[in-house]
Amino acid sequence: MFSILKFPAQSSFKQIGTRPSLDSQSLDALIKDVFEQVKSGGDQALRDFTLKFEKKSITDLAYTSEEISEKAALVPQELQNAIQVAYKNIYAFHESQKLVEKRIETSPGVVCWQKSSPIERVGIYIPGGTAPLFSTILMLAIPAKIAGCEEIVLCTPGDHPALFYAAQLCGVTQMFKIGGSQAIAAMAQGTESVPAVYKIFGPGNQYVTAAKMYANRMGLAIDMPAGPSEVAVFADETAYPAFIASDLLSQAEHGHDSQVVLISTSEQILNESIHEIKKQLAELPRKEFAASALNNSQFILLKSNEEAIDLLNEYGAEHLILACENPENFADSISNAGSIFLGHFTPESAGDYASGTNHTLPTNGFAKAYSGVNLDSFVKKITLQAISQAGLANIGPSIIQMAEAESLQAHANAVKIRLS
Amino acid sequence: MFSILKFPAQSSFKQIGTRPSLDSQSLDALIKDVFEQVKSGGDQALRDFTLKFEKKSITDLAYTSEEISEKAALVPQELQNAIQVAYKNIYAFHESQKLVEKRIETSPGVVCWQKSSPIERVGIYIPGGTAPLFSTILMLAIPAKIAGCEEIVLCTPGDHPALFYAAQLCGVTQMFKIGGSQAIAAMAQGTESVPAVYKIFGPGNQYVTAAKMYANRMGLAIDMPAGPSEVAVFADETAYPAFIASDLLSQAEHGHDSQVVLISTSEQILNESIHEIKKQLAELPRKEFAASALNNSQFILLKSNEEAIDLLNEYGAEHLILACENPENFADSISNAGSIFLGHFTPESAGDYASGTNHTLPTNGFAKAYSGVNLDSFVKKITLQAISQAGLANIGPSIIQMAEAESLQAHANAVKIRLS
Repeated sequence: MFSILKFPAQSSFKQIGTRPSLDSQSLDALIKDVFEQVKSGGDQALRDFTLKFEKKSITDLAYTSEEISEKAALVPQELQNAIQVAYKNIYAFHESQKLVEKRIETSPGVVCWQKSSPIERVGIYIPGGTAPLFSTILMLAIPAKIAGCEEIVLCTPGDHPALFYAAQLCGVTQMFKIGGSQAIAAMAQGTESVPAVYKIFGPGNQYVTAAKMYANRMGLAIDMPAGPSEVAVFADETAYPAFIASDLLSQAEHGHDSQVVLISTSEQILNESIHEIKKQLAELPRKEFAASALNNSQFILLKSNEEAIDLLNEYGAEHLILACENPENFADSISNAGSIFLGHFTPESAGDYASGTNHTLPTNGFAKAYSGVNLDSFVKKITLQAISQAGLANIGPSIIQMAEAESLQAHANAVKIRLS
Repeated sequence: MFSILKFPAQSSFKQIGTRPSLDSQSLDALIKDVFEQVKSGGDQALRDFTLKFEKKSITDLAYTSEEISEKAALVPQELQNAIQVAYKNIYAFHESQKLVEKRIETSPGVVCWQKSSPIERVGIYIPGGTAPLFSTILMLAIPAKIAGCEEIVLCTPGDHPALFYAAQLCGVTQMFKIGGSQAIAAMAQGTESVPAVYKIFGPGNQYVTAAKMYANRMGLAIDMPAGPSEVAVFADETAYPAFIASDLLSQAEHGHDSQVVLISTSEQILNESIHEIKKQLAELPRKEFAASALNNSQFILLKSNEEAIDLLNEYGAEHLILACENPENFADSISNAGSIFLGHFTPESAGDYASGTNHTLPTNGFAKAYSGVNLDSFVKKITLQAISQAGLANIGPSIIQMAEAESLQAHANAVKIRLS
């Protein structure tokens, strides 16, 4: 059940870090058909798909604000309070990411700056399925609200009351009863009821993922490419095996394809962690998922922190827990990760829900090139420049030189005519 | 030749803003073949493609640093000076975009922050063709250098000395003599000589663009989806028709498919600008390109600044020139644009070369969801969190509530076990 590697050679790190390959194109023909039907059939196509795939008959696609309020009111007070704590922390951290405008006079009379402009219409998808991910509404709608997005459109086939409570709390502007690839097709192209958005966020099954990739190829922005969720834990001899086991299991319970990696410089900690996993696993309600995910897990013993850093940077984990001494020092050497959890009292589940960081993070090694969702994901940074006549006299000769060397005479002329 | 629209209805703005549709998939089979051949054949496949497509026989794929220095030395002093002015300004503006670390204590004992981590290996493509775009090397390699990218790989079939001068000045670490879709395939997958990169930047023809999209579907990051370059000018009665004409022509000379739009609230300025275009066009070396692009141009007379703002936000221009009174005030209402040029003495060509802003910008309406290239394009923002035992006691109950409501018991356990 557990794949244990002791002191693998550095030359094998790349191989160890390789994820199972993802197939993003086998569903293309099916998805193309869904997009075309939604484009031509609009709302009625969405009703037909919902009846066909989910055996649900719907008339109005959108929830009314009364329906949302009624369902939201069903959330027990204690859970409401918990969601509000998470809301406050996520809000505070994402608000701190706002662009601070800086005007730079690059040459005398030449001033450049950036402004942040919200993406006007964004779409959020929240799957139905075994776990009602209302926390993901917080993670996506809160930064959208801070950014100032005018329309925050939510599609979900789920009906857990907390979905409605979170949507209301976070300023979702429209909420639709639709799911699957047809929901993505609707937000990508628009229908009578569903507005066409410019960017689509959120998790989903293979159909939803394929639909997001398809929308992306049509020119729509998406949050990031998707892959199975994953955690890597680095543990030295100061770590607590019971804590490590609980973190690995909290990742493993997500699904059969979850990726779980423990890297340790202590053989004792490694062995005790495995022992703890077996003990804790037995009591989990989602133990089949977890046990199945643990079949792909890796437990790796390494000689030094330096080796661990190399392997972790090669792996580029979505979540990285540093259960070690001086975790901040260790984190300074980490260049590839989605989110890093420092120390023995910072479990991944804190970031999943309530520490304030975002839980929509790059999987599958995408952390080598992609950031997780943050406030930037909901805005465009527009550059501006204002040049005075004197400023153009300063840099104009350089522009003319370069434009003519690139054989772009009209570019040079635009300066010459202003300086003559 | 000129399409002139007087006082179009607001209901037509969406239609006016629609670009010619792009076909990104018709080359897929061809590109797939190139990727497969480069994957299996490596360097030799690159040599074969270069012989076949460019009729050039090459042995070593990489330029040596001596070759680069020799070619760079051929750049005349005046052009060297011009490039250095541009370098200094681009450097200053992009350096100002560095992330300032802010630690946020979201709850007592719960501290979250972001750190910026460079993308280790980035690839830049610079086409050969009619214009040697050494300026694009500045725009891509300077922020890569500021970000701290370890390897900055440049592929170009071009051989203008300024390409080598710019590469050397900006810290390009390896420069290869290869072009076309095979160069993208090489950077995406790696060969014996060409390192595999994590993100690919730069312009190119339809084959290069299709190859970048293909690489993107494989999981590689790219700068942004591509489309023909475009400028929109807004001119009120204070504008100078000769300046406007020069700006429209500097866009039009890029290629047959360049998009050129003039929006004015003054019929006189509109008419005089058209007159000026005809006059200036006659003297351009690239007048066939420009004349052909002008066939798709639009000249639109509107009643008010408010209407102009609506249309410009619907259009979402790559470059937007505000040739009007109080341009900064006007710019405050612009939510969709790549880069904005304020006032009568800020031509687009200033931003193309030397003001300091980046010239790799979203075309085709992508400005509604995408930013232009900036320092963020070369880094990942990793989130970190450090929670003390007391901090976990503060937010732990909320995490447990939410995790249990989402039926994720192991997530709750990771907190419970630490608090027990």
